Amino acid sequence: MTPAIDDRAPPARPRIVIIGCGFGGLEAARALRTAAVDVTLVDRTNHHLFQPLLYQVATAGLSAPAIAAPIRHLFRRQPNLTTLLGEVTHIDPAARTVHLQGAAAPLPYDHLIVAAGATHSYFGRDDWAEHAPGLKTLDDAFEIRRRILLAFEAAEKEPDAQRRAAWLNFVVVGGGPTGVEMAGTLAEIARHTLPGEFRHIDPASARIILLEGGPRVLQAMPEALSERAREQLARLGVDVRLDARVTAIDAAGLTVQAAGDTYTIPSRCVVWAAGVAASPLGRQLAQATGATTDRAGRVVVQPDLTLPGHPEISVIGDLAAAHSHAPARQPVPVPGVSPGAKQMGRAAAANILRRLAGQPGQPFRYADYGNLATIGRNSAVVDLTSPLGPVRFSGYFAWLFWLFAHVYFLIGFRNRLVVLLDWAWAYWSFARYARVVTGIGNAGRDK
Amino acid sequence: MTPAIDDRAPPARPRIVIIGCGFGGLEAARALRTAAVDVTLVDRTNHHLFQPLLYQVATAGLSAPAIAAPIRHLFRRQPNLTTLLGEVTHIDPAARTVHLQGAAAPLPYDHLIVAAGATHSYFGRDDWAEHAPGLKTLDDAFEIRRRILLAFEAAEKEPDAQRRAAWLNFVVVGGGPTGVEMAGTLAEIARHTLPGEFRHIDPASARIILLEGGPRVLQAMPEALSERAREQLARLGVDVRLDARVTAIDAAGLTVQAAGDTYTIPSRCVVWAAGVAASPLGRQLAQATGATTDRAGRVVVQPDLTLPGHPEISVIGDLAAAHSHAPARQPVPVPGVSPGAKQMGRAAAANILRRLAGQPGQPFRYADYGNLATIGRNSAVVDLTSPLGPVRFSGYFAWLFWLFAHVYFLIGFRNRLVVLLDWAWAYWSFARYARVVTGIGNAGRDK
Repeated sequence: MTPAIDDRAPPARPRIVIIGCGFGGLEAARALRTAAVDVTLVDRTNHHLFQPLLYQVATAGLSAPAIAAPIRHLFRRQPNLTTLLGEVTHIDPAARTVHLQGAAAPLPYDHLIVAAGATHSYFGRDDWAEHAPGLKTLDDAFEIRRRILLAFEAAEKEPDAQRRAAWLNFVVVGGGPTGVEMAGTLAEIARHTLPGEFRHIDPASARIILLEGGPRVLQAMPEALSERAREQLARLGVDVRLDARVTAIDAAGLTVQAAGDTYTIPSRCVVWAAGVAASPLGRQLAQATGATTDRAGRVVVQPDLTLPGHPEISVIGDLAAAHSHAPARQPVPVPGVSPGAKQMGRAAAANILRRLAGQPGQPFRYADYGNLATIGRNSAVVDLTSPLGPVRFSGYFAWLFWLFAHVYFLIGFRNRLVVLLDWAWAYWSFARYARVVTGIGNAGRDK
Repeated sequence: MTPAIDDRAPPARPRIVIIGCGFGGLEAARALRTAAVDVTLVDRTNHHLFQPLLYQVATAGLSAPAIAAPIRHLFRRQPNLTTLLGEVTHIDPAARTVHLQGAAAPLPYDHLIVAAGATHSYFGRDDWAEHAPGLKTLDDAFEIRRRILLAFEAAEKEPDAQRRAAWLNFVVVGGGPTGVEMAGTLAEIARHTLPGEFRHIDPASARIILLEGGPRVLQAMPEALSERAREQLARLGVDVRLDARVTAIDAAGLTVQAAGDTYTIPSRCVVWAAGVAASPLGRQLAQATGATTDRAGRVVVQPDLTLPGHPEISVIGDLAAAHSHAPARQPVPVPGVSPGAKQMGRAAAANILRRLAGQPGQPFRYADYGNLATIGRNSAVVDLTSPLGPVRFSGYFAWLFWLFAHVYFLIGFRNRLVVLLDWAWAYWSFARYARVVTGIGNAGRDK
């Protein structure tokens, strides 16, 4: 008997849609490289961003292209993948479609990986955003760079001593890794990069204040390393204030509550590094599927990173409230760091391929290699996990370790080379070359 | 007799204000380095821009910091110079003051050098600006980069063949050096950089159209080199249309008049490289001093670059309608190129120092070393002036010559190194690394 013509047509390949090309989405897409599936990778920007170095763009140490690689270019040799620039408005789990802003038709999927990440949260005070920008995207970094550099320019032009001082007060809110990096680098700029370039002000007289609501900086680190970091910040000239809660921010500065006391800090340049909230897509997805979200808006996932009753939907990265499941141990939460997102990306992709092969998904297990944070020139803290127990160190060698780890993980050989060159130059000359402020027409007028 | 106390106070140093830190203003400021004067250098941006390579930023070949150096940093070791970020609203020649937007007090001067440059002109059709951005500032370059890259993204998503074709029609208006560079590089991107990265379109099918109103491209060049350039553009795949006048531009495309015929070109990405107009400051200054301006709004200067009746005001660079005065020859107009601006800057500074020493100013004499233009990968035309007569060549060696001349003149050693590295990489890989589009939130929605 001759087979029907349809039998000879290739079977339709499973359609996998990945939302978001951060660390999680990127790794998931790569893990599907050789699979007989059709992958569509949707992102609202055209680039994968190496977020751990974003603070360097904000502080004029690196140019944007040095830490951002075009997504299309990264996947040009993965023929089963289509890159789509677009903003996802919502997911329809019943119809199995992803809806994009302005698109003629929704995007159908057989399997979906949601890696839409997180944004900054002002704990319900969204009116603070305009006075204290956060640092998540390149546009955020440009805005912060502009505010920092224009604050010095405004101070140079300001005849009134009190107003001048306000322009030279830089406040970073939040003592996590980003806050510590920002504060340390700001101190470096004020003390080492700018002196000698101004005629009416001494940039080294700028005050860099780091406000942390809790009792120590870098709370994900062991207590001794937090203390090391605080000491190193102080040595760089950063005024670190612990147990200090911000109660108000406006154009003139902020109000702080600390030890029962309330005081104000006049400042024209405040950077927000305090709160993180999951992408709103998480809540929409949870509502549509009956899944739950945690306090930060992250979607609570099952051990295999899928949603209850929806084995075809995985949530990973900063958008997921996920646990690591090691045999014979209690599940522990996966920290919101890039290795976590990458590992979840690979695991979600592997589970999809298992399911397509008729096997069940496997619980996710996070391999924790430790934790690094840099503080500024020559300063960092490192907390490594090793089979022989934790390895902890700080100072110059920690900084070198941090530097090489970050350059190593940068996507794309060319970027690595350029970043190393930029840093070698910056290190020896104390210069920061990316001190370009654009769109200054308006800003220059107001400030 | 004891001298009065006042006699021991240092004599007030002459105050020199320079408006604009392009090539002319920068050279003037440098030429005053060792003089006993106080220099204030006003610019509306915080960076000196190496404009000859701006088209590389617009076409994603270079990052902005590679061609922009912070003005303060350039002059950090010139103690007699103060950098001021600000926008000049007008000059008051009677009071000898420069007025800045938002400043408490005007800036007094004893000598003034106006080097405010030029902007693009739409010949009275300013409504075209929104559909056909020009290329003068980094913000312009980012806007053009965004339009180019997003046009390919939009084409990839467009199901309708006719609309897709419009997204893939790139039109450059104006066959001067900028228009030729833009068209050549666009062809390179479409044919070499992007192919393989899209799944629904073939980027190489993009049409690059260069419209020139006159009978040849690069009209400042000898006719034979114009023809070489046209041939090289055609070889790169650029559709060069001569004697083609644009009569309308809107969001859907442009209307062209050529050889008595009128036709439309549907296009969503038009780059304006046709008209240049002097900064409006020129007209204001002319009105206030009784000087005249030419058709392009440039201020007609005396042989020594000062204004009639105002030996304390010099106008240089693209803002000046200046002549070169060689002994025993008819004065010839100085072309609007960077060597002209630089030489005028040095001459204006020297004339100020002569006047301060009680000597008369000297007429400006332009040393013409020739003219270069690049067309694209491996293609350029060179027309050098030498004592033995003109030296003209085109093609690969002209391109190498152009490359090294430009890198050599880049301000600052670090930039040179980075630009060379970027180009070496781009040359061997055909990649363009600065393909970052920011502020995409809105753009991605509309387009």
